[in-house]
Amino acid sequence: MNETPKGAPDETLDFSDPMQRPRFAGIATFFRLPWREDFEADAPDIGVIGVPYDGGVTNRPGARHGPREVRNQSTLMRRINQATGASPFEVATAADLGDVIIQKPYELVGAHAEIEAFYNRVVGAGIRPLSCGGDHSVALPILRAVAKDRPVGLIQIDAHADTGDNYMGSRFHHGAPFKVAADEGLIDPKRCAQIGIRGSLYDRDMWKFSHESGMKVAYIEEVEDKGWKQVMAEALAFVGPGPVYVSVDIDSLDPAFAPGTGTPEAGGLTMRELQGMIRMLAGLEIVGADLVEVSPPFDQGGLTAQNGATAMFELLCVMA
Amino acid sequence: MNETPKGAPDETLDFSDPMQRPRFAGIATFFRLPWREDFEADAPDIGVIGVPYDGGVTNRPGARHGPREVRNQSTLMRRINQATGASPFEVATAADLGDVIIQKPYELVGAHAEIEAFYNRVVGAGIRPLSCGGDHSVALPILRAVAKDRPVGLIQIDAHADTGDNYMGSRFHHGAPFKVAADEGLIDPKRCAQIGIRGSLYDRDMWKFSHESGMKVAYIEEVEDKGWKQVMAEALAFVGPGPVYVSVDIDSLDPAFAPGTGTPEAGGLTMRELQGMIRMLAGLEIVGADLVEVSPPFDQGGLTAQNGATAMFELLCVMA
Amino acid sequence: MNETPKGAPDETLDFSDPMQRPRFAGIATFFRLPWREDFEADAPDIGVIGVPYDGGVTNRPGARHGPREVRNQSTLMRRINQATGASPFEVATAADLGDVIIQKPYELVGAHAEIEAFYNRVVGAGIRPLSCGGDHSVALPILRAVAKDRPVGLIQIDAHADTGDNYMGSRFHHGAPFKVAADEGLIDPKRCAQIGIRGSLYDRDMWKFSHESGMKVAYIEEVEDKGWKQVMAEALAFVGPGPVYVSVDIDSLDPAFAPGTGTPEAGGLTMRELQGMIRMLAGLEIVGADLVEVSPPFDQGGLTAQNGATAMFELLCVMA
Amino acid sequence: MNETPKGAPDETLDFSDPMQRPRFAGIATFFRLPWREDFEADAPDIGVIGVPYDGGVTNRPGARHGPREVRNQSTLMRRINQATGASPFEVATAADLGDVIIQKPYELVGAHAEIEAFYNRVVGAGIRPLSCGGDHSVALPILRAVAKDRPVGLIQIDAHADTGDNYMGSRFHHGAPFKVAADEGLIDPKRCAQIGIRGSLYDRDMWKFSHESGMKVAYIEEVEDKGWKQVMAEALAFVGPGPVYVSVDIDSLDPAFAPGTGTPEAGGLTMRELQGMIRMLAGLEIVGADLVEVSPPFDQGGLTAQNGATAMFELLCVMA
Amino acid sequence: MNETPKGAPDETLDFSDPMQRPRFAGIATFFRLPWREDFEADAPDIGVIGVPYDGGVTNRPGARHGPREVRNQSTLMRRINQATGASPFEVATAADLGDVIIQKPYELVGAHAEIEAFYNRVVGAGIRPLSCGGDHSVALPILRAVAKDRPVGLIQIDAHADTGDNYMGSRFHHGAPFKVAADEGLIDPKRCAQIGIRGSLYDRDMWKFSHESGMKVAYIEEVEDKGWKQVMAEALAFVGPGPVYVSVDIDSLDPAFAPGTGTPEAGGLTMRELQGMIRMLAGLEIVGADLVEVSPPFDQGGLTAQNGATAMFELLCVMA
Amino acid sequence: MNETPKGAPDETLDFSDPMQRPRFAGIATFFRLPWREDFEADAPDIGVIGVPYDGGVTNRPGARHGPREVRNQSTLMRRINQATGASPFEVATAADLGDVIIQKPYELVGAHAEIEAFYNRVVGAGIRPLSCGGDHSVALPILRAVAKDRPVGLIQIDAHADTGDNYMGSRFHHGAPFKVAADEGLIDPKRCAQIGIRGSLYDRDMWKFSHESGMKVAYIEEVEDKGWKQVMAEALAFVGPGPVYVSVDIDSLDPAFAPGTGTPEAGGLTMRELQGMIRMLAGLEIVGADLVEVSPPFDQGGLTAQNGATAMFELLCVMA
Ligand SMILES: [Mn+2]
Ligand SMILES: [Mn+2]
Ligand SMILES: [Mn+2]
Ligand SMILES: [Mn+2]
Ligand SMILES: [Mn+2]
Ligand SMILES: [Mn+2]
Ligand SMILES: [Mn+2]
Ligand SMILES: [Mn+2]
Ligand SMILES: [Mn+2]
Ligand SMILES: [Mn+2]
Ligand SMILES: [Mn+2]
Ligand SMILES: [Mn+2]
Repeated sequence: MNETPKGAPDETLDFSDPMQRPRFAGIATFFRLPWREDFEADAPDIGVIGVPYDGGVTNRPGARHGPREVRNQSTLMRRINQATGASPFEVATAADLGDVIIQKPYELVGAHAEIEAFYNRVVGAGIRPLSCGGDHSVALPILRAVAKDRPVGLIQIDAHADTGDNYMGSRFHHGAPFKVAADEGLIDPKRCAQIGIRGSLYDRDMWKFSHESGMKVAYIEEVEDKGWKQVMAEALAFVGPGPVYVSVDIDSLDPAFAPGTGTPEAGGLTMRELQGMIRMLAGLEIVGADLVEVSPPFDQGGLTAQNGATAMFELLCVMA
Repeated sequence: MNETPKGAPDETLDFSDPMQRPRFAGIATFFRLPWREDFEADAPDIGVIGVPYDGGVTNRPGARHGPREVRNQSTLMRRINQATGASPFEVATAADLGDVIIQKPYELVGAHAEIEAFYNRVVGAGIRPLSCGGDHSVALPILRAVAKDRPVGLIQIDAHADTGDNYMGSRFHHGAPFKVAADEGLIDPKRCAQIGIRGSLYDRDMWKFSHESGMKVAYIEEVEDKGWKQVMAEALAFVGPGPVYVSVDIDSLDPAFAPGTGTPEAGGLTMRELQGMIRMLAGLEIVGADLVEVSPPFDQGGLTAQNGATAMFELLCVMA
Repeated sequence: MNETPKGAPDETLDFSDPMQRPRFAGIATFFRLPWREDFEADAPDIGVIGVPYDGGVTNRPGARHGPREVRNQSTLMRRINQATGASPFEVATAADLGDVIIQKPYELVGAHAEIEAFYNRVVGAGIRPLSCGGDHSVALPILRAVAKDRPVGLIQIDAHADTGDNYMGSRFHHGAPFKVAADEGLIDPKRCAQIGIRGSLYDRDMWKFSHESGMKVAYIEEVEDKGWKQVMAEALAFVGPGPVYVSVDIDSLDPAFAPGTGTPEAGGLTMRELQGMIRMLAGLEIVGADLVEVSPPFDQGGLTAQNGATAMFELLCVMA
Repeated sequence: MNETPKGAPDETLDFSDPMQRPRFAGIATFFRLPWREDFEADAPDIGVIGVPYDGGVTNRPGARHGPREVRNQSTLMRRINQATGASPFEVATAADLGDVIIQKPYELVGAHAEIEAFYNRVVGAGIRPLSCGGDHSVALPILRAVAKDRPVGLIQIDAHADTGDNYMGSRFHHGAPFKVAADEGLIDPKRCAQIGIRGSLYDRDMWKFSHESGMKVAYIEEVEDKGWKQVMAEALAFVGPGPVYVSVDIDSLDPAFAPGTGTPEAGGLTMRELQGMIRMLAGLEIVGADLVEVSPPFDQGGLTAQNGATAMFELLCVMA
Repeated sequence: MNETPKGAPDETLDFSDPMQRPRFAGIATFFRLPWREDFEADAPDIGVIGVPYDGGVTNRPGARHGPREVRNQSTLMRRINQATGASPFEVATAADLGDVIIQKPYELVGAHAEIEAFYNRVVGAGIRPLSCGGDHSVALPILRAVAKDRPVGLIQIDAHADTGDNYMGSRFHHGAPFKVAADEGLIDPKRCAQIGIRGSLYDRDMWKFSHESGMKVAYIEEVEDKGWKQVMAEALAFVGPGPVYVSVDIDSLDPAFAPGTGTPEAGGLTMRELQGMIRMLAGLEIVGADLVEVSPPFDQGGLTAQNGATAMFELLCVMA
Repeated sequence: MNETPKGAPDETLDFSDPMQRPRFAGIATFFRLPWREDFEADAPDIGVIGVPYDGGVTNRPGARHGPREVRNQSTLMRRINQATGASPFEVATAADLGDVIIQKPYELVGAHAEIEAFYNRVVGAGIRPLSCGGDHSVALPILRAVAKDRPVGLIQIDAHADTGDNYMGSRFHHGAPFKVAADEGLIDPKRCAQIGIRGSLYDRDMWKFSHESGMKVAYIEEVEDKGWKQVMAEALAFVGPGPVYVSVDIDSLDPAFAPGTGTPEAGGLTMRELQGMIRMLAGLEIVGADLVEVSPPFDQGGLTAQNGATAMFELLCVMA
């Protein structure tokens, strides 16, 4: 009975395609996509981009190492989303556009300008960006590129509303990008939903901009009470039709699922909740998306980077 | 558009207040509170105290290092509880009273006497203690001080009932404080609720004291079945009005949330459940509270200490 | 009041019984059971066996180290299941039969033959095996021994259906044992239920054998939607009466609960769910069970091995 | 040329001998020796014994977990010392006698009495013990057994002289065993050499007992200046002929080589130095030896336990 | 024989002195010194200061967390240097002055100005600073304070000469402080010795400023060839009499001894070498000293912080 | 004085060259070299190649993950060897040829044939390979390609001679490649030097092939006694002129420097010794070189991978 004949040659695998190689092998690009820095020459539908910048953090740094490690873990991803049937690489072309190389990192406003310039190239080439931070402050220069023509809606999954104001001499840190984006007319607060908000506060007014500008703020307690499906359904109804940017801060996850981040807050989402919510975004007009705040020096065994890569795959599936 | 004017000076931060400094900076006291060892001279309403003692463990040691690391992680806490609106530092004075320095640690009964003496000073000064263990055996000498005048009720969130008896030559180990406390008239079993109990047993009778004395024992399966709100509501009804001591063993959490503890038991609480339950204690007459069994040598990236610090902040919010 | 008399001698512990010794002490056998390699001479009802083989993995290796570390963590287990009242060591004899020593590990088919030969000895001695892998490919040679006389049903809790086919030159890797087992008539697909399936796919047809052969495939989304009780109830109804093999892949757990495994997939089970589902197997005619894919080199602080040991204890409780 | 014929069957391995099995497989006894708790019945020449006790530490605990993890790493050891040609298992019988099970661990003096009783059994059976701590305080009860008839010499390799006195209410902690041993006439200070001493001091007189009693104290600076060969040669000349006990504290190693210990001191030995020095002990009349203070909770990837196991193998080679 | 009488009460410890308490207990200040932020009021001879700033790194961040963790490990230090007999706390007063709180961290030049202002307060109070970084860029503002009146000599132990120039838009990063310091007349290149230099180079001219300005550059190969004593003796002869600043970059250590740093370079110093070299500085006119570049997020088990704390203790011993 | 003018623009960096970008940024190829899988079209002088295969290990697996992590750490390397002045990228062209993709990994002999075929392509294109394992068994198929025309000499730095024979059914495991290579006439034993050999032995005859065939075996004790310069000088004299292959097993390092490997042996080389010895190879006629046995799952903080990358850089410097 052990003499089961050995199978026929494995003709189904094309080893010239990095996505079909063993997942531990080979150079790690995002999802084992082709590496294309000269992207204007051959523009994919979707460009996956690393933004290795953490000059905007207010607490623990390290997110500059995020793109490298998320790329590494992203090689665990395969081609098709079993839960939804999405097959992003069949319906859209995609490439790893490499990292934004910030030439003058020691000054926050200038670094943001460099990021913005890179994304202007991306948007100019007709590419929709799926970005990997870096700290959340990078969402601002990305929005300056993808939303430069009109305000967009926002689905933000995060422990923090990130609509703070001046802090330690700067308006542009990672706790404030969405206030500045609203101030600059890049996002329409009436179409912005923030989900998973929690954690202690310095001031009762810490996220007052979210409230006063009319954003929808869904605290984690709502997720616990109503369930993630209802919360996201309400968020989608709030945001409505039209272009939308999706921003996922890995600290939306509970620290048991995402220890490797700069501002962990106990009591967050599980991966099942996060995956379920992202999947509900299918059909939106997504102009760009990001996954930010993976800080590998604080990670444990790559768990945060793996969950970050998985979240990026889910985002890709709803963007494609 | 990048020329957004730089914000006005950040006048709202008072850097002479350690709680307003960057969270990674400065000497780590609990919640960045003032350090006040000579507390009789200027007694705060609430004293936060470390009890670096683990001579009562039955399995893995290390909880003696708990206060140091919980202090470290507690600097992540801010001032206001976003979920409840509680602002403990506004409504009560608080200080870090330092650690109980046990002078003769090599003998369990004597060490407990030293802890009791320290807490007699605390209680004598009119301070309500919020303690950080150390192993759970320290709850006994703390109760001897805070409940010396009358039995109190107990809300205990723990994987273990800790109402065992003689084990390896001692009645005073960390698996037995609440039996001894009941024996000594410090707690009223009819007002004691134990929540989250689980794990394998040596004997069917292991927690028989809890049952026979009339304590309410809520197993983790009740939490899974009824939900944490219902379980805590029933516990509160059972305990009723009157003075109560609150004891949170970090091993009530699932080991994915609290790997750094001496007696981990699979299948425990999530942080959302633990936070939710502690918040329901608002309004109780809390005579003292503790968070015990954080064992940093077994921790992973500070996760257990961070969850312990968060639980202590939640306790502070319902005590203040 | 501190003069509480010291307890009477602890007469209840029999230190000649390793299960009554302190859990950190002593040589680590599974559950501190007697070590019995010459098991034909004194056959226990249940034999706990390590299979330190990981030659069948497709991604990250290390499961060969699983039995050693699961044994280590299994010493945390006590004797009685608090949730169910099961007392396996009272109702059945059990022993640690040691590890299968594979003499020619460099060739997969031959290694499987060695494993099968070992299990033929076990089954021949009338012992029901509870196995600890090793990678999931070892379930095939185990089934060749325990199901050699007739096909059995299968309860498989796993992130992956493991009914793939030829991959990289072999039909016998850890992603395919249950297809080969069905091909060889060892399991009856109409009595096979697979629970917890998730993760991205190489091909839409990756698990087509499960579907085409009539197995019940319960995706993780069903667990999220219906709850684990309903999912397992349906699985039990599907499998029905008759002999059944139970196979638990530790990667069924979410990576937050089981980082130490070769093919982690985000969004999996919690330990409360896994424990609850295993407990529902009480009363089945279990011919053997396994817990596979614990890979200690990728573990974090022993969490995966501890959860693996706990799952094995739960399996033992429903087998005994 | 690739058609090199496959080798003949590997007839040289006897898989019934655990020492010839793959090193990751099987139940971990010390050096994969037979486990023999009932050792009086069949007394080996050398008994390898675990002493899982850390009640004598003054700083970080965890050495109670030492025997388990040193056993685990000791399975990496093979049979012959390549550097010296020693083949200990050929020239002496050896067995793993299991761990000393301390029944009343909560009181230091009593625990020591239990350890002493165990070693009296060992010595009474004519077995020379090679012990694995536990903290260094266990050397005292071991010496009470092996040196009860006459004082012995001492070769101690350690960062600390461990000849302190009363500290925090006890004379019997891990910083004092050799003072008490000298006081009790178990060791002859004129034949005691302590090597590797370093670290900061509480008092200039901290190790005055060593000096005043006439012990030879070789500081780490002597090793740096003269080299380890000269230092050990002088120590051997000092100790001279006659019975000698050898005590190796893993903290003699630099923390880069032994992070997992309770009282690490920067600037210690390398493993090459430690191995070289132990090898020079060949020919001594060794009445017993120990390796202590491996604290797995503070270890990094098993490095300390592996170095501890290697040191024990070197000790075994000079004892056999 | 076990009846050894228990020692007399431990009268020698004064538990009101934090330095005499158990080392795991209590709030962690540097060396358990008194915490004195209002230092002008009661100026110690030596002020130990944390500078939690890492805005000047070129590669891996995290040194902002250095002071917290070095404080933690510094509690392992005792009072007297066993190797040299130095007793710093007897011959000098010392205090922990807390951390420099940088109010505007998002801009490098301004942050340096804030650091400089703090040190002007320190120097103005007649205090000699012993600083804990933070990245090496902080040595520049410290020198601006301690050397503002005249150029000083420099003993720098480092893998890198840190005399680079403009890099990524800034002259003030952690690879350049000593070029800027020389440019500003704060250090006299003819009295500057740099020891331990190694690692690959971007350009042959990377450290040309060191060579052209006349600094003595001792590569690690010199340490390997001549030994550390000779190398330091030559450095001391080069620096000669007069005021000197001592700067120790923890990356001078081999990464096996200091994994937790931002720019590790293989093949560095051992702790025995580093300790030996620092001890040779006794008798110098030290105007200030620092220990920089401990980056806890990259540390392993606190080893780097422990070695950093030990190096600071050695520095204190030669400063006092 | 703070008004030091900001430096001129950093014109010296060319950010289109990945080697001039920040080291944490960008996709990780070996040394940030261009990725060139279609290497016949544009053959570099030196091809850097990953061999992610660990099917030949006898103990701990994981070396399949070596190339990914060594690539990651290799981005820390700069362009010029400070110690020797070598500037490899100026004097030779180099590229990252990617990984050998083994299509049938489940059978050792066949996998070796696939590796050999890849290297035949490399050698056929006139490229000298610098390889990164993978386990040491891969040296055999590499030698079959680079030495197919004539036997070459060997400089092997390793804890193990790797000239074993049949073990567990195979002659081709990682403990035997150099015996098979000699048997096949690929290496000339009279020109083979093995350095750093140590560790315990199964049999006195374990490395008899090395001795009987006339190889030079330099044990670690020779390094300790004579120093690494003398040992390598003797090895170079033994090997003499002519083509030579260089094979560096990372386990030649002490486990404190290389914890992440499959067969660690205490008491090994330091990085200063290893770097020094490799630098002495300058001027040899090197036909190929490898760095093997980095096993990331057992690594600690990337230390082993970093040391492996550094060793590869040193190898590159003497090959170019
Ligand atoms: Mn956030
Ligand atoms: Mn955010
Ligand atoms: Mn508990
Ligand atoms: Mn408890
Ligand atoms: Mn699976
Ligand atoms: Mn499976
Ligand atoms: Mn010691
Ligand atoms: Mn000692
Ligand atoms: Mn440096
Ligand atoms: Mn530096
Ligand atoms: Mn080797
Ligand atoms: Mn080798």
